[in-house]
Amino acid sequence: MAAPASSEQRWIPWMRRALQLAALAEGRTSPNPLVGAVVLDAQGRLVGEGFHARAGLPHAEPGALAQAGSSARGGTIVVTLEPCCHQGRTPPCTEAILAAGIQRVVVALTDPDPRVAGGGLQRLRDAGLEVISGILAAQAADQNRTFVHRVRTGRPWGILKWAMSLDGRTALPNGASQWISGPRARAWVHELRARCDAVIVGGGTVRADDPMLTSRGRRSPEPLRVVLSRSLELPESAQLWQPSTAPTLVAHATAEAVALESQLNRMAALKAKGVELQTLERSEPEQLLPELARRGCNRVLWECGPALAAAALQQGCVQEIAAVIAPKLLGGELARTPLGELGFKAMDQVLRLNCEPGRSLGQDLLLQAQLSASAAPN
Amino acid sequence: MAAPASSEQRWIPWMRRALQLAALAEGRTSPNPLVGAVVLDAQGRLVGEGFHARAGLPHAEPGALAQAGSSARGGTIVVTLEPCCHQGRTPPCTEAILAAGIQRVVVALTDPDPRVAGGGLQRLRDAGLEVISGILAAQAADQNRTFVHRVRTGRPWGILKWAMSLDGRTALPNGASQWISGPRARAWVHELRARCDAVIVGGGTVRADDPMLTSRGRRSPEPLRVVLSRSLELPESAQLWQPSTAPTLVAHATAEAVALESQLNRMAALKAKGVELQTLERSEPEQLLPELARRGCNRVLWECGPALAAAALQQGCVQEIAAVIAPKLLGGELARTPLGELGFKAMDQVLRLNCEPGRSLGQDLLLQAQLSASAAPN
Repeated sequence: MAAPASSEQRWIPWMRRALQLAALAEGRTSPNPLVGAVVLDAQGRLVGEGFHARAGLPHAEPGALAQAGSSARGGTIVVTLEPCCHQGRTPPCTEAILAAGIQRVVVALTDPDPRVAGGGLQRLRDAGLEVISGILAAQAADQNRTFVHRVRTGRPWGILKWAMSLDGRTALPNGASQWISGPRARAWVHELRARCDAVIVGGGTVRADDPMLTSRGRRSPEPLRVVLSRSLELPESAQLWQPSTAPTLVAHATAEAVALESQLNRMAALKAKGVELQTLERSEPEQLLPELARRGCNRVLWECGPALAAAALQQGCVQEIAAVIAPKLLGGELARTPLGELGFKAMDQVLRLNCEPGRSLGQDLLLQAQLSASAAPN
Repeated sequence: MAAPASSEQRWIPWMRRALQLAALAEGRTSPNPLVGAVVLDAQGRLVGEGFHARAGLPHAEPGALAQAGSSARGGTIVVTLEPCCHQGRTPPCTEAILAAGIQRVVVALTDPDPRVAGGGLQRLRDAGLEVISGILAAQAADQNRTFVHRVRTGRPWGILKWAMSLDGRTALPNGASQWISGPRARAWVHELRARCDAVIVGGGTVRADDPMLTSRGRRSPEPLRVVLSRSLELPESAQLWQPSTAPTLVAHATAEAVALESQLNRMAALKAKGVELQTLERSEPEQLLPELARRGCNRVLWECGPALAAAALQQGCVQEIAAVIAPKLLGGELARTPLGELGFKAMDQVLRLNCEPGRSLGQDLLLQAQLSASAAPN
């Protein structure tokens, strides 16, 4: 991308502020994107700030314009995402901008939503406003990567998380795994869940660990807890079956190995506990994700065992890895590892990652990485 | 340890300089320790510096005193390790200090060598010199941890190194492993070998990888290449059997499964290639290490497969881990992992590490850690 013309560079500090505002609602706007906006008066002085706090609440632009009031007339609005031009749960932002008498609109990213997709900017240009777009576009695209991914692919952005010892083990040979990581790392996982719309495990994790899978109150509502089950052979009692803590969805296909009556009994028992059921054609990650996107999930967290994790990777359902590495050695030929079979025969086939610098979480180390675009099978 | 009295604090910058000088010979002084020395004249001005460069060459003190010449008279020598008081390959340093007319000796660490062990400081005190010890003692002990470990235990300090993917794999299920890490990380391994006196593998690594195991000229002589073999079933041709590159030692026990005549033939074939043979009672890490200590090794590098690595850990032969983590996912239930069975049944039994902060090696991450003293089975 060419460097912006010098006349455009003066918008960079304001766009940086708008991105900061947008980030205040990180993880809380799904299915909507993060958006921040600042309004400058005709003399270029800051007169309004706003951000989109949650789906159903006003977009960023009306809040910033309201704060500016009549000072917006003849001024500039700097906004991280193209203003919408369609009537959704709130009125089109383009009309609010025109009504406020704004003369110039500075935008980072074009909205990939097909209902907008450049139409917002066109509407503003047609009305005679100066429109500048592409300011800090890469940062804005990164900030909204989960929303952009969901809109483009029809699937939420997937994060696969695990905690392992330095020798790559997620449990001892006898299955013991509590705790590999320390309290700081476990609290960070709660924060991670608070930024996600759903947390997914397989039936094996429910049977082995009986996890709670909540953000421990850091998010309201708690993320949807999802069990992707092949067999519906799930425990009668489990922390996930307590709907007062958080909602739970059990997604499953009709398991051929299980008698129909037995299956219906199991489904009825789960329903009686307040668990929602979702039938899939096949109980595979790629079948589950469109359903979660339909429910408005932009970002989901995979906290599953090695077989389901490998399937999610192979089916292009994982875009990001969060690996906690504990300063311990577990050993064991039969000890559990993060990933099952991926089917690679040569080193040039393996999945490649773009790692961020490591970060300490108490004694543990957090490594976060995105799958390289060329490597993602999606 | 109590903070040194303020009168002693003035020696800290000089001791720091002496430690810097000592570090210049990192990895080249075995079986001797690293030692650095500075000489100050009677007015406290720097008049001499020296360090021990290699076994057989002068110790740090005579070099620094020679540089100082007559300016040493009435002055101070600051030295990282207690001066020796015994005749070795070179004369006792205590006598050189006395001959130079030094009035004060400042030392970081008492020499654990039983031929010294405080005797050097006593000799200097008895001669009427002021002796101050314990300045930056922890740093000095860390700098010479391999020497101190070898003197105290009769075994060299062991570093276990591996390169793995982020999901903890050291090879694909079919054994392919070249290359998991990138060129920068592989060059760092050559540097690591240059700081080690021997590099140890098992027969399986020779058969599978045919490694060269040299520092690529970064160390002269190259570290001793050691194969710890149970079966002596080694390839007829291998890079390790080229003594012009570096010396190689094959350590083995009398393998019961192999006919005596066949074994003698194999031994004769290796000898004919210039490989040295060493018979052990059992072909175990704990049997090999005293032999390597006898040969003057302070620090050895384990670059072996998971079974031998686990045995080395269980037998207390590893004090430090160097793990290179590549930004890749390999997967595979049958893919090789860094460590075989360690026999742990509960999380409170596992080996604990003190990790240094991670360090980037190109795209890869290097994690270095020492085994916690309480956890080391040694």
